[in-house]
Amino acid sequence: MLTMDMVYDAKKVLTGITRVTPLFEAQKIGSGIYLKCENLQLTGSFKMRGAYYKINSLTPEEKAKSVITCSAGNHAQGVALSAKMNNIKAYICMPAGAPLAKVNATKAYGAEVILVPGVYDDAYARALELSAQYGYTIAHPFNDERVLAGQGTIGLEILDQLSDVDQVIVPIGGGGLISGIAFAIKSLKPECKVIGVQSEHSPSMYVSVKNGELTEVPTTPTIADGIIVKKPVELTFQFCQKYVDEIVMVSDDEIMDAMFKMIETQKVIPEGSGAAPVAAIMTGKVDTANKKTVCVVSGGNIDSSKLVEVLSRGIKKNGEK
Amino acid sequence: MLTMDMVYDAKKVLTGITRVTPLFEAQKIGSGIYLKCENLQLTGSFKMRGAYYKINSLTPEEKAKSVITCSAGNHAQGVALSAKMNNIKAYICMPAGAPLAKVNATKAYGAEVILVPGVYDDAYARALELSAQYGYTIAHPFNDERVLAGQGTIGLEILDQLSDVDQVIVPIGGGGLISGIAFAIKSLKPECKVIGVQSEHSPSMYVSVKNGELTEVPTTPTIADGIIVKKPVELTFQFCQKYVDEIVMVSDDEIMDAMFKMIETQKVIPEGSGAAPVAAIMTGKVDTANKKTVCVVSGGNIDSSKLVEVLSRGIKKNGEK
Repeated sequence: MLTMDMVYDAKKVLTGITRVTPLFEAQKIGSGIYLKCENLQLTGSFKMRGAYYKINSLTPEEKAKSVITCSAGNHAQGVALSAKMNNIKAYICMPAGAPLAKVNATKAYGAEVILVPGVYDDAYARALELSAQYGYTIAHPFNDERVLAGQGTIGLEILDQLSDVDQVIVPIGGGGLISGIAFAIKSLKPECKVIGVQSEHSPSMYVSVKNGELTEVPTTPTIADGIIVKKPVELTFQFCQKYVDEIVMVSDDEIMDAMFKMIETQKVIPEGSGAAPVAAIMTGKVDTANKKTVCVVSGGNIDSSKLVEVLSRGIKKNGEK
Repeated sequence: MLTMDMVYDAKKVLTGITRVTPLFEAQKIGSGIYLKCENLQLTGSFKMRGAYYKINSLTPEEKAKSVITCSAGNHAQGVALSAKMNNIKAYICMPAGAPLAKVNATKAYGAEVILVPGVYDDAYARALELSAQYGYTIAHPFNDERVLAGQGTIGLEILDQLSDVDQVIVPIGGGGLISGIAFAIKSLKPECKVIGVQSEHSPSMYVSVKNGELTEVPTTPTIADGIIVKKPVELTFQFCQKYVDEIVMVSDDEIMDAMFKMIETQKVIPEGSGAAPVAAIMTGKVDTANKKTVCVVSGGNIDSSKLVEVLSRGIKKNGEK
């Protein structure tokens, strides 16, 4: 069972390993809007926190047998670097369409990448097979309380950096990030709202919470590739039901507008998922009047060619105004 | 005379106004390489520090008469926002070719922008005229000890954030940034080296120090538009002579390589000047072996269209490898 003791233990383990990422007010996006910049985290996303805490906690026997995971990319990099820092071997099953920047970065950290045709869930199935066959420990991206505890350290940092925060907006894919953050924040400051954001192209947690039960929802391609998940898991579903106040949805157009705004006015590079909270604000889907609102910029791993597309689109759109 | 008391006073005045910007290791650029991210400073550059400290220190009579300055852009934004925060009027003379992002941002902070044909020095001449005519106080971008004291707070932060730093690399235009940083660092940790970087297109401080006297040097256009200065001033020249260990030069190609590397691997958006220290490292012009080296990323104010150029160039060049 996830406890605050585990979150504090994760904080202790991660001290000197992961970065305390900057949190600052983004005045040009709006009054009282703050960015928590996990795009500046080691490996370019928050995933490093949960992955390191999980891998560090393995027994010597488990470490000797290697770890395996499945990931669209960011968790892969977190596992790869964490495994390297713990001197163990990591195998990473990735969907064949994962962004090149993420594939290459994962390989560069010394992990063995196995590209699997299909989406996230197909890569996961392959990881399960290999784990059963060779005894590798599965480092699941979100179905693991230690991973949630690691991500929960972001909640601790937000409360340290902005103690009078009123609400926190967090992207949701499998739900590991928001589960950890919401648990930590609601435990320490229950009056602070925690709001989730999903892509219209992958609304599985939104639908699950609405239905009151875990639901599989078909996905379609989105610029927010980090949060494409057909079906969350019981663990994160229950955390979202219990601790998340509301879930809103954003479109790819809204995300790209937010990405451009964050780059132009804040010099912050978000990947699609990382811009979803700002998109929710810019479209008025989350009310920010007279509140201090933290947007968790979950990551910044985007191919340069995609960045060129987003910038060119923004320049054209702004010129047309 | 600049004293450490002034630098500490600047730190006190700036607390709660400017950001303590992040400093982190950029492992993928090299071992022991750290970025001090002044691109994430309020207004997108370090200039806010000196400008605010200067303007805040004006007498009520001076404040009532307004301030004026000349700037290629970043100092302009620093003065504009500082003036707004102190409820005073600011006039900004800018070279007519200044990047649109910088002109618009300055206007958005409520300052009155006066575009002057020519380069920085022409804009400065016009500011002098208007100051004489209307009694505006000149907020010079670097010929002012209070401005140097403000920039010196970056030196204090670097020593706080990385006490065992061995060397700091700083871009040089007029020399205000490096003068403040070098003074603070050499006062507190004389064994730490401070190295300046200039653009080949505007090497006036390099030539001045080499000649042993203040020298005017013609400039040509460069992507490092923030550090184009034909001739520094006696104040900064003397600080560079006394406190700076070495000055190296980089080309526009080298700067663009560094910009691409910083964006791709660190999710850090530098303007041309801000990438000059990393360019000096990537080209081996500064030896970083077995040292902890801090690169001061002085600012991130670059037009999105320029960013697209830099990214497209980088993609093409990397693809050709």
